[in-house]
Amino acid sequence: MNLAPGYVSSLVRRLRQKEWILEGSRVPSRRGRRKVLLHINPDLAHVIGVEIGRINSRIVVTDLSGTVLSFKKLRSELSRGEGPVLNCIHHEIKDCLKRDHNIRAIGISHSGVIDHATGTVLFWPKVTGWRDVPLKQIFEKEFGLTLILEDSARTTAIAEQRFGYGKGQTNFIFVHAGVGIGAAIFVDGGLYLGHDGVAGELGHITINETGPLCSCGNRGCLEVYASGGAIIEQVRLGIDQRGVSSLAGLAENNFGSLSIESIVSAAESHDRLCETALTDAGTHLGTALAGIVNLLNPARIVLGGTLPQAAKDLLTDPLLRSLRRRAFQRSLSRLEIDVSKLGEEAAAVGACLLAAEQILEGMCTAENVNEKEGFPQIVGG
Amino acid sequence: MNLAPGYVSSLVRRLRQKEWILEGSRVPSRRGRRKVLLHINPDLAHVIGVEIGRINSRIVVTDLSGTVLSFKKLRSELSRGEGPVLNCIHHEIKDCLKRDHNIRAIGISHSGVIDHATGTVLFWPKVTGWRDVPLKQIFEKEFGLTLILEDSARTTAIAEQRFGYGKGQTNFIFVHAGVGIGAAIFVDGGLYLGHDGVAGELGHITINETGPLCSCGNRGCLEVYASGGAIIEQVRLGIDQRGVSSLAGLAENNFGSLSIESIVSAAESHDRLCETALTDAGTHLGTALAGIVNLLNPARIVLGGTLPQAAKDLLTDPLLRSLRRRAFQRSLSRLEIDVSKLGEEAAAVGACLLAAEQILEGMCTAENVNEKEGFPQIVGG
Repeated sequence: MNLAPGYVSSLVRRLRQKEWILEGSRVPSRRGRRKVLLHINPDLAHVIGVEIGRINSRIVVTDLSGTVLSFKKLRSELSRGEGPVLNCIHHEIKDCLKRDHNIRAIGISHSGVIDHATGTVLFWPKVTGWRDVPLKQIFEKEFGLTLILEDSARTTAIAEQRFGYGKGQTNFIFVHAGVGIGAAIFVDGGLYLGHDGVAGELGHITINETGPLCSCGNRGCLEVYASGGAIIEQVRLGIDQRGVSSLAGLAENNFGSLSIESIVSAAESHDRLCETALTDAGTHLGTALAGIVNLLNPARIVLGGTLPQAAKDLLTDPLLRSLRRRAFQRSLSRLEIDVSKLGEEAAAVGACLLAAEQILEGMCTAENVNEKEGFPQIVGG
Repeated sequence: MNLAPGYVSSLVRRLRQKEWILEGSRVPSRRGRRKVLLHINPDLAHVIGVEIGRINSRIVVTDLSGTVLSFKKLRSELSRGEGPVLNCIHHEIKDCLKRDHNIRAIGISHSGVIDHATGTVLFWPKVTGWRDVPLKQIFEKEFGLTLILEDSARTTAIAEQRFGYGKGQTNFIFVHAGVGIGAAIFVDGGLYLGHDGVAGELGHITINETGPLCSCGNRGCLEVYASGGAIIEQVRLGIDQRGVSSLAGLAENNFGSLSIESIVSAAESHDRLCETALTDAGTHLGTALAGIVNLLNPARIVLGGTLPQAAKDLLTDPLLRSLRRRAFQRSLSRLEIDVSKLGEEAAAVGACLLAAEQILEGMCTAENVNEKEGFPQIVGG
């Protein structure tokens, strides 16, 4: 850092006095005394991470290193409409703040379309309501804390980079396949956001120009073929048309309880319709990923989200067959593909990591370091 | 750079004495004397750039800034086989070296599949012969100069970044459409190479899973629909089957002179077959680029290579229609698309820029700066 050794010593002393940094283990040095590793005190602040999901919402509190201190899961019940859902989240955040006075920032993970500049959910595909919801503004005003709003595929990817198969990877792609399909692309260790911050719409690359209509208005998008939504639709149609499935009984309540999990479970018991739906989805996903592998030549692809995490080999076997058939050997030879092993709290933890990053950035300003007392100001809040 | 002002002054004095750097214009300073801009002496060394193309080869000599000092174009005549072609290139390089004793490195641009680690052309799609040609080894041994071998789409893209529509752009994509289709992806101002150095195979992303066979062995790759090769094939088939085209006469000599240029020229005279072939290609290219725009959200796309540069609006009008229909509005709203205006020497000039970069990297080592005399050693040669 080109700082005089004496200045560094005094800086470290001040930071240790304030308990912003802690001494870690001692490691051998090439000469002289053994080196002492310093790290930021993870309990300097805590953060809340909320994933507002289509079916469940999850609230976690973590320290600055992303270690989970508390976790709660509740049904989102989106059918109640946006107001009651937000009220419920509001209540949960308030509850966390009451129990932990060290919380300094909030991260929210949402799978809708986000305007990052204002922290607004513009709309939420396949969910009615949720038009132009200024989430950042609402909660920042309410709680007086910095709030970060980010896409769920990205927050999950950030957790994957810190704790999962993305750890230590510089060029990797996290594919999030749930109701929809998204991706987070890491280049040189950083999340690639794109010119307008909206990179990663993997679900809307065309794999069949003349294919069926997609919810985005185009034809033959990957999402029409390989998303959780597409699989459910394929099984529903199959039962409607032919009725030959162990899940046929679900037609009675209008397929209300037809889910990826029930389809995977039926496929595991060799229900042909469900097996085929998962195989087809895997094959199509492999086609799209072959294109991505040819174009971006990543070191690793991590598959996350409900679909790969529930379906495992039922999805990944046909996916790998299709990928290996279609991608160039020289891009494939060293490529690694894994299904994420992170738990269901990943998206909320990723939101915490983003919130923690804001706090740490605030701490890094020299003014803050030199201040005698008080908690670091948060930059960009 | 955290260097003492006195040290910088003495360093600059030494570098100026050696004429490694030159004084440029004077610009106003906020206080004190006007600042003098320093720049590297572009004539410190010259470099040769060779593009070995399917039809023509081009040899340029440039200074370190990429300014062209000489340019020569000759028919590649690949049908003679690899040996005679390389002999001819060898002769041309020798000729340049005889005329310019300041040449210090060679850049070669080739559209075959390259092993960057060894500087070998592994194979050349659609060209017979050219298996495992160790170009770097052959020419380095022969001339005793550092040689850089790089893919033509990439060298053209590097020229585009220095002199064309990529200038000043940090996140942009250069699409090269000629006989095949390739891309160079720039992230944060640098060329993104991928984990194995083979990123950019845009021609082999699938736009139609069940489409026709591609030379790569798969079905429905973009290249089957939208490359110069695909357009020529579509016109040839059209004439064979229906014969209704102003180019029908070319069937007599087995379509030997059927080219993108002749097809564009016929389309400009409203030859329906040729118009349709170009419109179809543009539409398919737009579909693929929509996927790329959704996935990577670039600031700009520059279209280069024979196809867009010859066909212009005949290709780009349908391309833009298809792209606008398929890509998300929020990725499109600020996107700029241009057809490259660089001349046919672009690929060779890009190869020169890569060679010059190697020389400059060698100059930047402190050892070299402190040496009293002699030309900077080249690092990584």
